[in-house]
Amino acid sequence: MTDVFCEIARGDVAAAVVARTSDLIAFLDHRPVFKGHVLIAPIRHVDTVLDLPSDLMTPLLTLGQRVAKAIVDALGAQGTFLAINNVVSQSVPHLHLHVVPRTKGDGLRGFFWPRTRYGQGEIDEYAAKIKKAIDSIT
Amino acid sequence: MTDVFCEIARGDVAAAVVARTSDLIAFLDHRPVFKGHVLIAPIRHVDTVLDLPSDLMTPLLTLGQRVAKAIVDALGAQGTFLAINNVVSQSVPHLHLHVVPRTKGDGLRGFFWPRTRYGQGEIDEYAAKIKKAIDSIT
Repeated sequence: MTDVFCEIARGDVAAAVVARTSDLIAFLDHRPVFKGHVLIAPIRHVDTVLDLPSDLMTPLLTLGQRVAKAIVDALGAQGTFLAINNVVSQSVPHLHLHVVPRTKGDGLRGFFWPRTRYGQGEIDEYAAKIKKAIDSIT
Repeated sequence: MTDVFCEIARGDVAAAVVARTSDLIAFLDHRPVFKGHVLIAPIRHVDTVLDLPSDLMTPLLTLGQRVAKAIVDALGAQGTFLAINNVVSQSVPHLHLHVVPRTKGDGLRGFFWPRTRYGQGEIDEYAAKIKKAIDSIT
């Protein structure tokens, strides 16, 4: 399995790298939501968050935290947005954590609008279905 | 420090809870992006991802992974979206991981459009600034 993020990790494709650890590489998205938008990917190939080995979880969020702090420090952002798309809207089939600088009034209503509403009793039906599925995962 | 997610964790405010561990509580967002949209919050108060203690990182992503799998299993979603808003667009000042079911053609162009472009040489300037800020975090 190889893809453009594997190639970036190997140094076969150029990228604006901002950090590298033994497990992860962080580089700028070349088509950013906002300038300074960073992607963090595992060096070893991982498809989606469902495939993320537990030994990479703390390293991923530790570097995510570090990059989020750096973006605020370096760019004067007020906040950040961290996100992982799995399968749908995932342009490269290699897990990557987006870290995006945010500023109030930046025009990004973003992902979080519009919201929908549950009908009467419907939220409990959804909760029961999901809870059952969670409980059946061993 | 207390807020509505602290109250949900204590059982003082009702929520459609789908999972609970010693560290985390998962419940349905009452105004979902799509039905089945889950929020995962630490039981102890944490403001933003910058404040997330490292001992909660693996538990948070492990439960996030479990919920993401459950949503696909329970709702027939094709993919999922995991996200954390920090400060900007963060409606409750208590860290929460959104886990949202996604289906191709669900109408959610979402957060990831429109993209912008860097001018000539600009990506390297941004990378240098962010790299410097990362390296100065000890």
